[in-house]
Formats: sequence, structure tokens, C-alpha cells
Amino acid sequence: MSERITSVEALDVRFPHRDGSDPVDPFPAYAAAYVVLRTSAGAEGHGLVFAVGRDAELQVAALRSLAPMVLGEPVDRLVDDPGALARRLVGDSQLRWQGPERGVVHMAAGGLVNAVWDLAARRAGQPLWRLLAGLSPEQLVAQVDFRYLRDVLTEDEAVGLLRDARGGRAGRERRLLSQGYPAYTTAPGWLGYDDDTLARLCTEAVDVGFRLITLKVGVDLGEDVRRLSVARQAVGPDVRIAVDANQVWGVPEAIRWMRALAPFDPYWIEEPTSPDDVLGHAAVRAALAPVKVATGEHVHNAVMFKQLLQADAVDVVQIDACRVAGVNENLAILLLAAKFGVPVCPHGGGVGLCELVQHLAMFDFVALSGSTEDRAIEYVDHLHEHFVDPVVVRDGRYRAPSAPGMSAEIVAASRAAYRFPDGTRWTTVGAGRA
Amino acid sequence: MSERITSVEALDVRFPHRDGSDPVDPFPAYAAAYVVLRTSAGAEGHGLVFAVGRDAELQVAALRSLAPMVLGEPVDRLVDDPGALARRLVGDSQLRWQGPERGVVHMAAGGLVNAVWDLAARRAGQPLWRLLAGLSPEQLVAQVDFRYLRDVLTEDEAVGLLRDARGGRAGRERRLLSQGYPAYTTAPGWLGYDDDTLARLCTEAVDVGFRLITLKVGVDLGEDVRRLSVARQAVGPDVRIAVDANQVWGVPEAIRWMRALAPFDPYWIEEPTSPDDVLGHAAVRAALAPVKVATGEHVHNAVMFKQLLQADAVDVVQIDACRVAGVNENLAILLLAAKFGVPVCPHGGGVGLCELVQHLAMFDFVALSGSTEDRAIEYVDHLHEHFVDPVVVRDGRYRAPSAPGMSAEIVAASRAAYRFPDGTRWTTVGAGRA
Repeated sequence: MSERITSVEALDVRFPHRDGSDPVDPFPAYAAAYVVLRTSAGAEGHGLVFAVGRDAELQVAALRSLAPMVLGEPVDRLVDDPGALARRLVGDSQLRWQGPERGVVHMAAGGLVNAVWDLAARRAGQPLWRLLAGLSPEQLVAQVDFRYLRDVLTEDEAVGLLRDARGGRAGRERRLLSQGYPAYTTAPGWLGYDDDTLARLCTEAVDVGFRLITLKVGVDLGEDVRRLSVARQAVGPDVRIAVDANQVWGVPEAIRWMRALAPFDPYWIEEPTSPDDVLGHAAVRAALAPVKVATGEHVHNAVMFKQLLQADAVDVVQIDACRVAGVNENLAILLLAAKFGVPVCPHGGGVGLCELVQHLAMFDFVALSGSTEDRAIEYVDHLHEHFVDPVVVRDGRYRAPSAPGMSAEIVAASRAAYRFPDGTRWTTVGAGRA
Repeated sequence: MSERITSVEALDVRFPHRDGSDPVDPFPAYAAAYVVLRTSAGAEGHGLVFAVGRDAELQVAALRSLAPMVLGEPVDRLVDDPGALARRLVGDSQLRWQGPERGVVHMAAGGLVNAVWDLAARRAGQPLWRLLAGLSPEQLVAQVDFRYLRDVLTEDEAVGLLRDARGGRAGRERRLLSQGYPAYTTAPGWLGYDDDTLARLCTEAVDVGFRLITLKVGVDLGEDVRRLSVARQAVGPDVRIAVDANQVWGVPEAIRWMRALAPFDPYWIEEPTSPDDVLGHAAVRAALAPVKVATGEHVHNAVMFKQLLQADAVDVVQIDACRVAGVNENLAILLLAAKFGVPVCPHGGGVGLCELVQHLAMFDFVALSGSTEDRAIEYVDHLHEHFVDPVVVRDGRYRAPSAPGMSAEIVAASRAAYRFPDGTRWTTVGAGRA
């Protein structure tokens, strides 16, 4: 009897904030809807969907709704063609109405698809980035659903892009292994620091090797002017400072606000408005150039990225490992970005997002875009200690992971302790206030 | 003590198909995640989110996640300003990551918001359409979140559109009450009928007063050519035949396929491609004119409708009562459509969608667009018997409901019988095969 998937476990895992002081959510958390596939041969594949609190419960329910489509499947079939599974999950007739291809059900599909890729990479004994980079252009293209993309990118064009990137691959892989991949940091960027702290955090970030830092903006314009002034003075003219509005503005407001920040030479404005507003982003970009426009962590599928690129609405594509339907849809997005020559700067943070997404950026460098110029992976320094194969960032660069898989596995003790609501960290006195 | 919401009940209600013969889903269903608000004074507000099977369970979980934001609220505050509740639900920091403003969590917000409007209309002793039509332009505009819309429609412009529509209102209300609102029918349109049955169903639809029928297309071009030929011959040149592809095509394929159907004078092509593909719809529309492009039942929020209108991508806006965040967001969409002069033909069918959405179309006629020209509400003839105040369609027209509320209430006996999985229709032998 061939090896099969014998269980699909979905867990609600929540990590209390170190400073649980949000007045609205007395116990805010970083969370994950975590999924483990187990096979009849004792192998495992791990995946997760980031969540920010009680949404983890809903995401776990979605994973459980989709789990029967994976349970009992022959492992060979799954790992040889995760794209076929992705199509089945996304097309499921009884969940599709609640999407389609967006939100809870789409992210759950992504969690399962990523777990299958993790399993595939473990079986191959390779980190995912190298497994992907070792596939032929035709194999990679067969993993992408082109149904809604062909008006902009055909299978043949995609194969061409991948073939064009074959030259120099070995050298790029060596460079990646020796030098890593650029990171950028949000450490100085949170609201609420006094000027001295902000300046110190900026200087420290530069001192440890970061060449791009990002600051939150959008609550108070006067404060933002002050903070950008402090930050620019601290890092000097040559370090890039990006700003992130977390969708707080409408289009005219985004343009007005950012014009007031222009004297401080912001490198990009991230999420200036609704992530759905392709034409709005295009208007913001046209008004603010040369300030770049970045978005992606809330962009829900490849069709939306296609349009952001078609409409000249973005300068920077910020893929997220857990927003879309897994590795396969992120391959589509990387191919679209490559076709338009737009750099990809992946979204990190949350729980495990850095761990997972680094594989996609590194694959892209070795086998597709062939460049790290104007590219960097977001780095947020928290919760990595819970991962079996945590990211390593040194001198402002991600080191290439070498362990087999997608780096998604949370250590068993952490899963047991932080499982919500019955893990020991949630059931003992003072839990949630660690 | 003022009247408060004392319970928020969320139910999974599933109605088996009369012909449960789908090989993939042996027990397919029309379903609803159904919600009842109860107050300390014994009043009720009913809402629902349509679902197609086991997705109802997930939607019920989402309603329960949001329920604490309604439970205990003073009823006066809720019914005086459902828009404030809509903003809170949509902005909830612990569910927003799984949206935002799309999919499961957004539809759950819509279910609760609609239930509050149902309660408000019951308290006012009016059907919802009349309650809305009786609000001042300023009151209506205050119910809409303009944050992401102002680049296209400001509050002042919206007030202006509503003021302009004041002339002739009394006459339109009389006309609505005496003549009803046009309906269109999907009855002849399902796949799998032989030619004689198709011709007969088309003729019957015209005989009972429908002037627009719609046919499913997209599985087999030869079949579609044959079916459209039969339907056109049956109804003659003056009855409109729309076609519906349910998102099956990419952009180039949609254009090729529809050109082959052009000789049969299709009135519109509905959902030619991904509902997210604004620019794709614009390309399809430009290529196929004068055939119209219609979409909306899967368009997830007002920002997407804004862009469909901005990009000249649609000729027909198909609002759905349960896709977006309730009455408030549909008000925004109606205002956008009115600004662009694009007719609204609401999506019906499923469970209760006709019941709910008729109120929005009738409000639009009386107080905003002022016209029924090129407008009709989809009518699908099933499951109405389960509603306390079912739609009444006579002579191809919806009759204006007169009972207080949004017509969302399912009769208690049906709720008890079809509750999944423990209702009597699901626990007795042969259940699901009724």
C-alpha cells in the first residue's frame, strides 16, 4: 500500500504580546492556525496561516473544512503535483461561495498547500527554495493556474522568463549561500517612541547592517513629520526610509499626506489605501513619483497582483507566504512581477511569515528575477525562538536555510504551551500577560 | 433600563436539493447561516448569509465570532445608526486580517448588519424599502463609509444625487405599489434540458410576463450555440436573453466564446471571468459592445464596484444582499451606480436572496435612480415557501412587500426541520433525498 496522508491536524496557537496593553483587546496575540499533515510512513508536513487573535479559531475551522480533501491522499500524488491539490481546494464547490479565492477559505487552502510543499521538500531532503530552483521551467509553469492570467502572461512567456534566468544560476546560488539575501527592518518604526529612542533604534538598525528601515505613519501628520525628521537625521541621506500607512487613507488623503512627508525622501509608501483599490494605487503612484508605492500583504490573489502591475499601480510587490493559496499562487505572482520587471520585497513578521517567505524570495533570486537589487525581505524580530528552523538574519541579511522543508515547523513544546485555549501558557495564572 | 440585545443566535440551516444527484456532493444543499437578534423587550431582527453546503458551518462560526460586538448593545443605538455598527464589525482588529472587507468575515458582518436593519424596520412598522426611502439624504449618506470612495464620490455629491431624486417620489411609490418592479428569470437557463424542454420553458417564461431570461453558458460552445438558437427562436427578437458564464473563462477566451454567440443577440454576459478582474471586465466589455457586461454576486465590496464603474468595465451592477457588509455597503454601491448612471439588476436565488434584495432595488427606484428602465431583479422560484414574508412575483414583476422588516425571517418550523445536522429533515431516514 502506498504512503498516504493519515491525519490532518489543525491547531489554534496564540502567543501573547509581550506588552499586552491594547485597550481594545486586553489579550491581543500573535496567532497561527497551524496544520500538520502526517503520513502512513511517519513523515510530516507543516503549514500555518498567520492570525492576530480570535480569527485563528475561524481559520482553524476553515482548515478543518478543507482537510477531507487531503486526508487519505497518496503522498506521491500530492508532492509530485501540489498544483493539482491547490486547484481542487480553491475550486471546492461547497466553500467557494464564501470566497472565491479570497479571505478565510483562500488562506486555508494556502495553509494546506504550503504544508504539502513542506512535506515535499523534506522528502527531497532540501530546503524549499532549492527544491523549487531545481525544477525545470516546464515543471514550475505546470504548478501555476493560468486561467485568469493569460491576457497578461501565457505559459510560454513564463517558461521563457525562467529559461532566460538559467544563465548564472550556479553563481547566484553560491552568492546566496555565502552572502545571504537583503533584509529590511521595522524595528524603529512602531508608533509611540520618544525622539531619543527612535533615533537610537534607527542608528542601531544601520549599525547592524540594514539599508532600509520602515516607519508606521498615518495617525497624526505633525507627529509623522517630526518622526521622519528624526529618523532621517539619524540615518543620513543614504539609508532608505520607507513608510507604512496600513490602509488608513482614501486616495486624495494619501496624496496630501505623503506630499507633506516628501521632504524627508521616503523610499516607498506601503498600503496607502484599500488593498483592493488597484486604480487608487495607480492614482497615488502617479501623483507621488518618485516616491514608490508598495503593497501586497493584504492583496488576496494573483488576479489582483496582475492588475496592480497592468495598471502601473505598484513599484514594489510585497508577497506574503500565507495570504494567497500557497507556494503555487506565489509562483504566479513572482512570474507576473518578473514579466513587469517589478521588484519583490516580501512581507514578514507575524508568526512564521519570515520563515516561510524567505524561501520564495531566494528561489526568485536564484531561478527567476536573478537579482537582489532594490529587493529585501521584511524582518521583524519576534517569535523566531518557537521555530525548529528559525530565520537567521546577520549583518542585515537573511542567511539561506539549509534544513529540508519550508521552515514552518513550530517546536512541539511551544505548540503544547501556546495552544489556545488549553495550552499551559493560557491556563495558568497570569497567562496572556507574560 | 433601556432595551438591549439579549441574544444573538446563529444557525446552520440547509435545504437539500430536490434532485440531489451531483456525483461530487452526494448531499448538496442550499443553505444559510441564519442569525436572530433578540431584545429585552421581546423584539427580533433576522438576517442570513447564503451558503451552498458545508460552508454554512464556517459562516456560522464567523457570525459567532462577531456576535459579542452586538450582544448587550442598546437597541436604540443600533437601529438609529446601523452604519456605526457596520464600521465596528468591518474594522474589528481580531478578524480583519482574515479579510479585510472580503470573504467569510465580511459576509458575516453583512448578516449582522442586515439583521439590525430588519429589527429597525420592524420597530418602525415598515418594510425596509419604505423605511430607507423615508430617510433624508443626509441620514442616508451618514450610513455610508466614504473613506475609500471619495476619489470618485463625495458625501456632498451623494446628498445631491438623493436630493435630485426627490421630485416624483410619491408617484413612483404609487407606481411601485400598483405595478411592482420588473423581474427576470433563470428558469429556462440551467444546463441539461433537451431542446423541446428549453423551448417550452422559454415560452412559458414569456407567457407569464418575463421580458428578460438568462441562460448558463461556458461548458461547451457547440451546445451553447444550439441552446441560444433554440431559445431565441422560442422567444422571438424582442425578449432579452442574457447569458451567464459563472467566471469560467479567462479574458481572451471570454471574448472568443461570446463572439460566437453574438448572432443570437445576447443582452448581457454575466461573470465572464474572475470577479476580481476589473481590468479584465473592461477589456471584455470593450471587445464585445454592444453586448453588455454584468457582474456583482461575487464582487466583495464597494471599492471593487467603484473600480468596475471607474474603468467602464460593467453595464449592469448586480448587487447581492449578502455578499457585502449589509444594507449600508449596498447603499454605497447604489450611490456609485447612480453617479455613473449604470442600472442595477440585483442578484437573487439561493436562500432568501430575492426576499432581502428586493428592498434595496425598490428603495433605489423610489428614492435614488428613479427608474426601472433596463432594470430587473433576478427571480429564482425555490425555497420561498420557507419564508414568513415570501416574495410575490406576478406577471413578471415583484410586488412590493408591505410587512415590516427586510423579509428575512424563515418560518420557525422550517428552521427546526432543516437545521443542520440535527433538524428532523436531516436525522430521519432518507433525509437529504427529499
